[in-house]
Parts: sequence; structure tokens; C-alpha cells
Amino acid sequence: MQLREMSPSQVRELIRSGGHSKPTAGLAPGFAQANLVILKKELAYDFLLFCQRNPKPCPVLEVTNVGDAQARLTAPGSDLRTDLPRYRVFEHGRLVDEPTDIVKYWRDDFVSFLLGCSFSFESALMDSGLEVRHITDVCNVPMYVTNIECQPAGVFSGPVVVSMRPYAPLDAIRAIQITSRYPAVHGSPIHFGDPSAIGIRDLHAPEFGDAVQIRSAEVPVFWACGVTPQAAIMRIKPDLVITHAPGHMFVTDLKDRDMSVF
Amino acid sequence: MQLREMSPSQVRELIRSGGHSKPTAGLAPGFAQANLVILKKELAYDFLLFCQRNPKPCPVLEVTNVGDAQARLTAPGSDLRTDLPRYRVFEHGRLVDEPTDIVKYWRDDFVSFLLGCSFSFESALMDSGLEVRHITDVCNVPMYVTNIECQPAGVFSGPVVVSMRPYAPLDAIRAIQITSRYPAVHGSPIHFGDPSAIGIRDLHAPEFGDAVQIRSAEVPVFWACGVTPQAAIMRIKPDLVITHAPGHMFVTDLKDRDMSVF
Repeated sequence: MQLREMSPSQVRELIRSGGHSKPTAGLAPGFAQANLVILKKELAYDFLLFCQRNPKPCPVLEVTNVGDAQARLTAPGSDLRTDLPRYRVFEHGRLVDEPTDIVKYWRDDFVSFLLGCSFSFESALMDSGLEVRHITDVCNVPMYVTNIECQPAGVFSGPVVVSMRPYAPLDAIRAIQITSRYPAVHGSPIHFGDPSAIGIRDLHAPEFGDAVQIRSAEVPVFWACGVTPQAAIMRIKPDLVITHAPGHMFVTDLKDRDMSVF
Repeated sequence: MQLREMSPSQVRELIRSGGHSKPTAGLAPGFAQANLVILKKELAYDFLLFCQRNPKPCPVLEVTNVGDAQARLTAPGSDLRTDLPRYRVFEHGRLVDEPTDIVKYWRDDFVSFLLGCSFSFESALMDSGLEVRHITDVCNVPMYVTNIECQPAGVFSGPVVVSMRPYAPLDAIRAIQITSRYPAVHGSPIHFGDPSAIGIRDLHAPEFGDAVQIRSAEVPVFWACGVTPQAAIMRIKPDLVITHAPGHMFVTDLKDRDMSVF
């Protein structure tokens, strides 16, 4: 069977059996992929509250039961210890391992957070005939740290990180309409135009990802980005945190189109 | 100053000073009113997760910091101990008091949850020229326990409770469109038509509120209701829970229209 024709559960099974350890972009098209953050239970309440107070950068798709490695609501039968192609293990804020499974790291007090990812709204943009520049350019989306502070919650705080896609005004209007329908995957943009208005000094020097070209008559359009919660977690250097490796996401059974609010 | 012309903060000040202890319907028109649930911190994580897993019946507007009586995000300067006209205090599931303030009950480990209330979407329905039958009939909205189970979370579980408003099909379609714009206050309906399909035996005998007339050519339309989380809490009979008294809501500074997603 072709990789791109597999269902989400077939993709997870393939990854679990060691048959795929590359990025997940393009797999199980039409189904939502998720960012993974695994924390110890002692941090879970503050982090869930941080997500509740900052839903645009931190859209929660599912929070597992304590110690449960299965995403029962968004991917029944899954195993979060094995079903992502690559993980990152951080101890006291330091990257210590990038394994293809986390069986040996698993703890009974782990809580897993699955957060919405912009792949879903980018599919919707492209389905509507809009270009997504970093996909055209075959690079990573440019991401910038802004001067907008998240609403803090417990031990978590930090700036909103945004991703940027350039559009001519008429396409920007359409992109605003389309992404407004997807609040579970960052929703509508939070800014367009002048980067300095949100504390971005140089569009050509993103803090994460790659710079993309902005053509004449295009304006940069900025969406809240899933790097925001990761940055907020790393600030406090927890003794143990596990995330997906960039681009190596969790493939859920949720259909992109079912996440649309209208 | 006329009561109906007061701003949300003026309404809260009036209530705080003992000048108003009646229901809040019609006060500070255009501003969102909220359901209040106060729990001890030990239950807060499970309850927040229950809300996250059941966003239609349990739309969270704000969760306060532990021990903080101020709703800093939705009503800066407020005091949740005094700013609602009447409260209900439950000990081990039993109603023990209906005071006009809860100063003497306050604890440093309290967490307050403000949940969206259907007043906001009913305003939007009426602004669009749609009738809201129980308002026409000057009674409470009829509410029914369904056979739809909430997604459980930790110690919390229970059936979805719905409210019902009857509409002719064309108005029902418009009502679906309008309420879809307000996911923070229960959002779109979860059913219309045959009550037995969701386990309702008799439309004339609601479990809560009052029956309303359903005219010929009208169909009942059902929305998830804020009684759902209250019922889930009462099931476990916590040693201490405080809520608003029915109809005696918390008036926030959030504008109804700012809760619209488009």
C-alpha cells in the first residue's frame, strides 16, 4: 500500500512497527496532525489553564488521562509512546535524546497534551486555491517571537510566537475567512502588515523556521503558533518534558473538515 | 441612574453594596453574564479537563487563580465573593445556604470557574428578529436530561442536559447559523426534532425550568445547557461547592458581540 493512501491508524501502525521515522507532512491527507507535549501531572493543571487562557497559540485537541498512553478521544487504539516517528526528550530544559519511541521514558504520572497544528488550516487554504508560500518554497514556515505576552497561568508565561504567510490583500481577506473557521488549529490571524507593531524587528530573520520571499503588493499575515506553549514550558526548565520532534507529528483520526466551526 | 443603563462594573458595585439581590436578566444589556462554580483546588484539574472535553455544555470564559476572588480577565476589579446577587452553598451535595455574599465561606484554596450562559446567544437570536419562546411566555427555559453521556474526566461524569427553544424550520435554520457564531456560549444546537432520539420522553415535563408551547409547524431545537456541569458536580457530592443561584448571574465586562467567532 502506498504511504499516502494509508488511514491514520495504518500510519500509526507503520510508525509503531519502525517502518517510518521521517516527518509526517502529507501523510493521511485530510486528517488532523497534532503537536505532542508530555508533562508530569504536577504541571498539568497549570499547563491546561495556560492553554485555556491562550487558546489561539495553544488549541487543545485532547488531554489524556493520567498515565494513559492512549489518545482515546482523537485516536482510539493509539499508543503515544510509539506512534510518533520521532520525539524530543528534555531534562531540566536541555535536549537529551531524540528517540523513535519513548517506552523507556514512560511514567505513570505522565499527562499528554495534543495541540492543534497549522497543517490543518494550510490544507484548507490550499483547497481554496490559496498559495502557502513556505510550501511553494519547500522550506519551514517562518516563525517570530512577538512583544505580545500570553496570559500567564500558574508557573507558565511567555511571549506569543507567530507564524507568517504572505498574501496580496484579496487573498489575505480570504485567508482570514478560511482560518476563522478553524479555531481548534489557531483560528484567524492575530495581525497583518507592519511587523514592528507586534515587536518583530526583521522579517528576514525569523527566530524559528526559514525566511520566505514577500512579493510586491503582498502583506505579511501572522497567526499564533504552536511553538508558543513549547517556549513557555522550556522557560521553567521542568525536570522532564517530552515533545514530538519538529515536523514529526501525531496523526489523529480527526478529519480536518470536522474541525471547522461552520 | 436607571438600573438598565448601568455598565457591568456599576452593576457589580450596586450588587456588592447590597442594592440589588434579584435576578440579573436584562442588566447591562450587550454584556455577557456567566455561570459561577467555585470548587476547592483539589477538584479543579478534573473539572477543567471535564470542561475541555465537553465544550458545548461547559464553555469556560475564565478560571481564576487559586484563592483569587477577582475575575481578572473578564471583569477586572470584580469580587466574586460579593458581586453576584445570590449564591448557593452546597455541602456534601446538600443545599445549606442561599446567601447574598460568600465572604464567610471564602477559602484560600478556592478556584472559580465562569462558564458561558445562553443569555448571550438569546440576545443575538432576538437581535436577528427571532422569537425566544420562554422569554415571550415569561418563564424559565425548559431543560431536559438526555441519554447522551458527557466525556468523563477524572471524578466527573454525567449526561448532557439540554435547553429547548421551538422554531419553524426556516427560523431554526437561522437560529443554527446565529448560535454557531457563539461557541463560547454553547454554540450550535446538538439536535432538533424527535425528542426521543436523545432520550427525552416528554417535552411537556422538563426536568428543570418550565414547559413552553410548541406551535404547529414548529420543531423543538435543543442546545447543550450549563446545568450539565452543575449536575456532574452534584453527582460526586463534594464537601463544599458554591454556585450562583439560578438566574442570579455574574455580569462580566465581555461584550456578547466580542464572543462571536465571525
